[in-house]
Amino acid sequence: MAETTKFLLSEDAIPTHWVNLLPDLPGDPLPPLNPQTMAPAGPPDLTPIFPMELIGQEVSGEPDIEIPDAVREVYRLWRPTPLFRARRLEEALQTPAHIYYKYEGVSPAGSHKPNTAVPQAYANAQAGVKKLTTETGAGQWGSALAFACSLFGLECEVFMVGSSYDQKPYRRSMMQTWGATVHRSPSSLTASGRANEGSRTGSLGIAISEAVEVAAQEPESNYALGSVLNHVLLHQTIIGQETIAQMEMAGEEPDVVIGCVGGGSNFGGLTFPWMRRKMRSGHGPRFVAAEPAACPTLTQGVFAYDFGDTAGLTPLMPMYTLGHGFVPPPVHAGGLRYHGDAPMVCALLKAGMLEARAYRQNETFEAALRFARSEGIIPAPEPAHAIRAAIEEAEAAKQAGEARVILFGLCGHGNFDLAAYDAYLAGTLEDPEFSQSDMDAAIAALPEGAPSLA
Amino acid sequence: MAETTKFLLSEDAIPTHWVNLLPDLPGDPLPPLNPQTMAPAGPPDLTPIFPMELIGQEVSGEPDIEIPDAVREVYRLWRPTPLFRARRLEEALQTPAHIYYKYEGVSPAGSHKPNTAVPQAYANAQAGVKKLTTETGAGQWGSALAFACSLFGLECEVFMVGSSYDQKPYRRSMMQTWGATVHRSPSSLTASGRANEGSRTGSLGIAISEAVEVAAQEPESNYALGSVLNHVLLHQTIIGQETIAQMEMAGEEPDVVIGCVGGGSNFGGLTFPWMRRKMRSGHGPRFVAAEPAACPTLTQGVFAYDFGDTAGLTPLMPMYTLGHGFVPPPVHAGGLRYHGDAPMVCALLKAGMLEARAYRQNETFEAALRFARSEGIIPAPEPAHAIRAAIEEAEAAKQAGEARVILFGLCGHGNFDLAAYDAYLAGTLEDPEFSQSDMDAAIAALPEGAPSLA
Repeated sequence: MAETTKFLLSEDAIPTHWVNLLPDLPGDPLPPLNPQTMAPAGPPDLTPIFPMELIGQEVSGEPDIEIPDAVREVYRLWRPTPLFRARRLEEALQTPAHIYYKYEGVSPAGSHKPNTAVPQAYANAQAGVKKLTTETGAGQWGSALAFACSLFGLECEVFMVGSSYDQKPYRRSMMQTWGATVHRSPSSLTASGRANEGSRTGSLGIAISEAVEVAAQEPESNYALGSVLNHVLLHQTIIGQETIAQMEMAGEEPDVVIGCVGGGSNFGGLTFPWMRRKMRSGHGPRFVAAEPAACPTLTQGVFAYDFGDTAGLTPLMPMYTLGHGFVPPPVHAGGLRYHGDAPMVCALLKAGMLEARAYRQNETFEAALRFARSEGIIPAPEPAHAIRAAIEEAEAAKQAGEARVILFGLCGHGNFDLAAYDAYLAGTLEDPEFSQSDMDAAIAALPEGAPSLA
Repeated sequence: MAETTKFLLSEDAIPTHWVNLLPDLPGDPLPPLNPQTMAPAGPPDLTPIFPMELIGQEVSGEPDIEIPDAVREVYRLWRPTPLFRARRLEEALQTPAHIYYKYEGVSPAGSHKPNTAVPQAYANAQAGVKKLTTETGAGQWGSALAFACSLFGLECEVFMVGSSYDQKPYRRSMMQTWGATVHRSPSSLTASGRANEGSRTGSLGIAISEAVEVAAQEPESNYALGSVLNHVLLHQTIIGQETIAQMEMAGEEPDVVIGCVGGGSNFGGLTFPWMRRKMRSGHGPRFVAAEPAACPTLTQGVFAYDFGDTAGLTPLMPMYTLGHGFVPPPVHAGGLRYHGDAPMVCALLKAGMLEARAYRQNETFEAALRFARSEGIIPAPEPAHAIRAAIEEAEAAKQAGEARVILFGLCGHGNFDLAAYDAYLAGTLEDPEFSQSDMDAAIAALPEGAPSLA
C-alpha cells in the first residue's frame, strides 16, 4: 500500500554536465564525409547551418560537457522528470518483474524533445542567429523548438511531414501558439519540396531537406535537428543520468533498459549514461531498441554511408539505413519514420552492444491501451513500441519465474494522437507493410564512391 | 539563477484527510430542499443516484474526513502536484509581485478532476455499483471519470455538452481510450435530451439531466457529479492543503489566492484549506473568483433556491444562479458554462469572504498566450480566467510598488483546446455577449414555493 510509486529528484539534482559517449565508443571512429570529396566532413561543412558551439559538441572528445546555466534554468520548468514504478501494469500482467518507466511527457511540449531544443536555441541566440528552421514528424520536435525559440526570442520556421500535418492539426496549433510558422512538407517553398511534390505523405527526409535548404540560403538563419546528430543525443543524456539517480532511490538495478528508436535521441539519451557505466565497470543491463516494422532501420537496414536527408544536402553518415530515398509508410509513430538512425546508436548495434526489435503498428497500440488503462497515462505511438518490448520482457520474466527489473523510456504523451487511438478502437487502424522492393531500390541508389562499411 | 522554480513534495505529503469547511461556514446552514415538499432534502432523496458513503460526506459535520488508502494509492500516480514560481512571467510583466501557481495538469486526464473522480469511483465500486453516468462540459470531468472507472472496473457512460463535443473530438477519444461510452448531449436517449432537442449547443444543465435520468432508471447505475456538491469540493481540498505546505517551502504567505469558478470545485479545492486557516486565525489572504463574462453567475446572478440541472431533477440548492433554464453561450471554457455555482462557494460570497470578477473570452486568451510564451505550459481556457486575474493583481502590485504574493490555480492544460487558440491567433475568436434578457426569462422561471433568500 505505502510502497513508492514515483521517484522524484529535487531541482538541485538536474545534471550539471551532459554525458558524451563519443570517446568511449567501441571500434575505430567513422567520421561523417563530405559527399563531394569523400573526405571527413569538418566544421566548414557545418557552419552554414550550425553555430560553432554545437559543432564543437558534435565532435568533442571530452567525456563530460558542462550545461550552460541559462539552459539548466529553463530545464527547471519541468526537470527532473519523474521515474515511476508501474505497479498497476505489473499487477495486470501478473508478472514477478519490476517495471519502471522514466516519463518525459511532463515537459511543456509533451516529450523529451525540449531537452535538446533549449540548448540548441540558446547556442544559436548566443551566436546572434535570428531564426531557426527545422523539420518535424509527429510534431513533437517542432513543438519543442517553437517553445524553446519563444524563450530566447528567436523566430522559428517548421516544415511538418505531410501525413502528420494531416493527422495532427493541433500540433500545428501548438507550434503557432508559441509563435512559430508551420508549413506542410513537401511544400512549394523550396527546391527540395518541389522535387518531391508527388509524395502525398512526405517524410522526415524530405522535410529535413526543405529546412536545411532555407537555413543555408538565409544568412541570419540556422537549422536545428531534433535527433540523429551527436550533439542532439548528448543533450538528451540528462534523461539517463537522472534515471541512474532514481533507480538508486528505488534501490534496484535494471536488468534491461528499453527505448524506442526513430533517429535515436530518446534511446541514446536514456541509455548512454547506463552504457558508459557498463563499459567502464564491465557489468550492467541489456539494451533493447524498439522500432516500427514498417520502417525497420536497425533490424533490416544495411550499414553504409548515406545522406541524412532525402535530397542529399547533408554530409554522409555511417549508419544503418533503408536508403535516403526510402519513404516509410504513414504509421502514426511519425517520430520513428526515418530511413536512418543516429551514427552513435548504429555503432553500438554494430558492436553488438544492443538488441533491436521491430513491432507492427497494431501490436504497439494494443500495448499502449493496456498501459493507459492500468497506469493512467495515454502514451504517444512512439514509446508504445518501448511499452510493447517491456511487456514482452515482463512476460519472459514470468515464464522464467524471475523478478527481473525492467526500465523503459516513456518519452511522450499521446494527447495529440487520439485519432490513432480512435482508429485502433474502431478496428480500422492500418498495419502498413514494409516494402522490401522500395528499400532495395533505395539501397541501389546509395551515394557512389563512399567507403564500404560492410 | 539558482532560485527555486518548482516546489515538490514527496508522496508521504499527500494529505491523509480532506478538509470539510461545512462546519466552519458563516451564517445559518441552508439545506438543499426537496422540490416537491420544500422540506430539507435528506439521504432518501439522494440514494437513487449516490452511494451512502458519498451522501455521508455531503452532509458531514466532521472538520476532517479520512481519505481511504485505496484512493491515496491512486493519487500517487500524479500527486503531490507541483507548485511553480512563475519567474519568467514576473519578468515579462516587470512586476515586483511574486507569482505562484499550483499545477493540476499533470494528472492523467490533464486537470484537477481526477482528485474527486477517483474517490467517487472507489465509493461506488465498494457499494457494488456497476456503472456510473455523468455529464461533461469541456471533457475534463468525463475524461477524469472514465480514467477512474477504468481503475476500479466500472462501466462509464458520459453525456458530453454538444458544443464541446464538436469543438473537442479528441476529448471524446480520450474517454473511449479509457473504456467509456460517450453521447453528444442533448441526445435522443433520454426524455431530458429529447425535450431539449432544439438546443444546438447543449449545456451542462441539460447534460446533467440526461445522466441523472439514466442513473435513476437503471438499478445498478449511479450518477457522479464533477463539481457543485459539497463532497466534490471536499475531495478537491487536497489541492489547497498541498499548496499550504508548498508555500511554506517557498517561505512566503500569499496576499491573494485566485481560482476560476464554473461549478466551484477547483476554486473550493484550492481555497478552502486557506479559508479555514484564515477563519480560525483571523488573518490570511484575499480570495478572488474568476468567471466568464458570458456566464457571470457570481457577479450577475441572483441568490435563490434553484435546480442544479435544466430539467429540474435535482434537489433545490441555495446558490447564485442565472436560472436553471439559462443556456450560456458556447465559450471555449466549457467547464465554466454553468448557470449556478457550488452552494458552499455561494455562501462564502454572500458572507463577503471572496471577490468575484468576470472576464471576456478574448482577454482570457490574451493572458493565456502571455503565460504560454513565458512559462511554457499552454493553459486550458478555464484557468486562463485565473491567469487574467493574476496578471491584474500583478499589475496592481506594480502600480503600488509592492512585492505582493499572488497564488493562483492552474487547474488544467490546454492540449485539447488548440482549436480555440487557433481562432484567437487568427483574430476570429468570438466574444459572446451575456444575454440579460435570457437571464431575466430564466429567473422568472425559478421554482415557485421555495423560501426567499434575498
